[in-house]
Amino acid sequence: VTAKGEDLKTTGRGGNHLPVITLLTDFGTVDYFVGAVKGAILSVNPQAVIADITHEVPPQDLEAAAFTLLASYATFPPGTIHVAVVDPGVGSKRRPLIVSAGKQFFVGPDNGIFTYIYDRESSHQTFHVTAEKYFRHPASTTFHGRDIFAPVAASLSKGVKPKAFGPSITDEVRLETSLTPVGQKDGRVEGRIIHIDRFGNCITNITRDLLNDEHATLLVREKPIDNFRSFYGENSGSELFAIWGSAGFLEIAVNGGSAALTLGVKRGEAVILTQSRKGAKESA
Amino acid sequence: VTAKGEDLKTTGRGGNHLPVITLLTDFGTVDYFVGAVKGAILSVNPQAVIADITHEVPPQDLEAAAFTLLASYATFPPGTIHVAVVDPGVGSKRRPLIVSAGKQFFVGPDNGIFTYIYDRESSHQTFHVTAEKYFRHPASTTFHGRDIFAPVAASLSKGVKPKAFGPSITDEVRLETSLTPVGQKDGRVEGRIIHIDRFGNCITNITRDLLNDEHATLLVREKPIDNFRSFYGENSGSELFAIWGSAGFLEIAVNGGSAALTLGVKRGEAVILTQSRKGAKESA
Amino acid sequence: VTAKGEDLKTTGRGGNHLPVITLLTDFGTVDYFVGAVKGAILSVNPQAVIADITHEVPPQDLEAAAFTLLASYATFPPGTIHVAVVDPGVGSKRRPLIVSAGKQFFVGPDNGIFTYIYDRESSHQTFHVTAEKYFRHPASTTFHGRDIFAPVAASLSKGVKPKAFGPSITDEVRLETSLTPVGQKDGRVEGRIIHIDRFGNCITNITRDLLNDEHATLLVREKPIDNFRSFYGENSGSELFAIWGSAGFLEIAVNGGSAALTLGVKRGEAVILTQSRKGAKESA
Repeated sequence: VTAKGEDLKTTGRGGNHLPVITLLTDFGTVDYFVGAVKGAILSVNPQAVIADITHEVPPQDLEAAAFTLLASYATFPPGTIHVAVVDPGVGSKRRPLIVSAGKQFFVGPDNGIFTYIYDRESSHQTFHVTAEKYFRHPASTTFHGRDIFAPVAASLSKGVKPKAFGPSITDEVRLETSLTPVGQKDGRVEGRIIHIDRFGNCITNITRDLLNDEHATLLVREKPIDNFRSFYGENSGSELFAIWGSAGFLEIAVNGGSAALTLGVKRGEAVILTQSRKGAKESA
Repeated sequence: VTAKGEDLKTTGRGGNHLPVITLLTDFGTVDYFVGAVKGAILSVNPQAVIADITHEVPPQDLEAAAFTLLASYATFPPGTIHVAVVDPGVGSKRRPLIVSAGKQFFVGPDNGIFTYIYDRESSHQTFHVTAEKYFRHPASTTFHGRDIFAPVAASLSKGVKPKAFGPSITDEVRLETSLTPVGQKDGRVEGRIIHIDRFGNCITNITRDLLNDEHATLLVREKPIDNFRSFYGENSGSELFAIWGSAGFLEIAVNGGSAALTLGVKRGEAVILTQSRKGAKESA
Repeated sequence: VTAKGEDLKTTGRGGNHLPVITLLTDFGTVDYFVGAVKGAILSVNPQAVIADITHEVPPQDLEAAAFTLLASYATFPPGTIHVAVVDPGVGSKRRPLIVSAGKQFFVGPDNGIFTYIYDRESSHQTFHVTAEKYFRHPASTTFHGRDIFAPVAASLSKGVKPKAFGPSITDEVRLETSLTPVGQKDGRVEGRIIHIDRFGNCITNITRDLLNDEHATLLVREKPIDNFRSFYGENSGSELFAIWGSAGFLEIAVNGGSAALTLGVKRGEAVILTQSRKGAKESA
């Protein structure tokens, strides 16, 4: 399990950098789980720099985990290893995975948690982790975060190549939700709310490249929203507005309140963007 | 954006130390915001050591953020860079700042969040960050924590000098609250409750140097408190008591309960310290 | 307070590793306490790698802290220093301790928080920290986490030997609870619930070596549980089941619910394991 500098370079990590391993789980921060995972990483690679993304994903909420990972991974440097463990199937036959994508690595269960990474990084490679020599022993059936994903990530951070952990696969499990709005025709985009944050902001899967017109209207539950703002505090009214959020998606928000509650919507709700060329808004 | 060892020394950081960047925000720990900020820092300076102070400042509560920063910054080593982001004005014209004070640096919005640092470190220098080459691109209008403050702090940690980020200013925005009790006369001190912690302890802005007598009484809402203790568990009664808290201020507490609820007070409440020379308490 | 490489080696830390210091407290993550402790560590040893285990131990709950430490420490590498501060007696005469056990170190108050470490690591050595030169000055009477335990741990991480901090002692304070089930006779084990996690899973002090039979029954509040599972999702029924948990103890759980609420039990409740040789279950 030793690493050579050359390996480090060929896997895309900068030679002089301490390797970064991020953690994204639904373990909560009250119990011993997060501590045990950190120890398991540092026991294999004491040089690893561990960065908590969150441990407060709602229990077993794969969509929330997938979105949170999507919205944070791209700011990290090349070579970063993201350990994402929301794992209702722990102990069953579901596969442990390493995904190599966008010069970064992702380690976690094959249950759809990496769906948006697959969507975003089309040239990704996925490996089914089968090489038990990289596991903690004895590996439990109840805590793969500590016994499989942590030591695998730590070995990866030492320069072990992804293919050393097991065979390449292409039939990864995916969530039903997708980053690509299903219907796009004549500037009309049929999207969905893919995430609701803790403030009640509704994040859609509509990206800026789908907008070809300044005069656009968003329709949610038959309610039209044509108030597009460039920042949250732009005016102080209490009406709903649309804003290009920091994760790169069109969001629906309301000042000092919850857009989700105001609209009465949940994740998965359809949103429709209509738009027309400048000056032709009435025909939209 | 490269740094030389000489620069590191001249800016007060020890040559052999990894630079420490602390984070203090109201982002919460559920969403992707904290992860995105950490990645943005590590992408600019993978050597940075990131230390979370808290991400649980009550949303947009600048006074709480200012106090929490005041109470923790001084334990950190010289050269530490504190990123403090409670930023209701994100996207508007409010200025991004670097404050150089007490051999440390502070990076955040110009909205008063550094008020107590200005009070405590009278010889501080403040810079208005205007050099966009140190920003993440494209910089959003909604998440300056990730796009401005994180990369600016990371560049600072690499040895870029504060003046390279923009012009020096002296008209920083300040909170109305102050660390200096407004009225001081004949041993009588008119202070305020500047913070209430999660246990309901009421922290005043009265510091130990203002006490010149062992026989002192604190008056809050016309209730006199003359029970001064040296540690929390000193006796087990349930009455209110005063104690020199670990942040260096006089606090009002009650065993196993909330002093704030017992007194019915909120932050900002006036407190009056009266004192007299030893043996002359009756004349106080 | 300087350290030599030789010292580092003789105290069991790997020469090339950055020293790991973990934190386990009941400070919460809202206030400035955690930040102040991190700063106090980094001021003494800027090379220290700080890993948060948890700061969400229920206030003053020593049993919960002791269990959480037990369940996480062993995954960390040799030389790790665990700072555990749940400290209702701060400021009183209770002693500050360093415990050397299992090639790791434990720093905290002498109030029983290390009970399970003493149980598990029979050849531990304990030192009463009296050398004030390793404290932060002036040391407060209210925040020994910052002023005593943090700088002591940081000095330890620089290679100062435990005996330099004070005399060896053997009369450590212990909790009443114990990792060893009190009654063991003819395969019958009288154990206790020593922890209830945030999901309501009930962790007993029964370890796998006490089970000599596949046909075992667990009795809690006169309710027999003989459904032993190997992983949580093994079947989807809603009945109570027993499982060997990831901390190495027999746990009582229920799918999608709280075993503690279902059973109406609290920490400390007696559990009785009965077992018989294969094929002789009826005589158990």
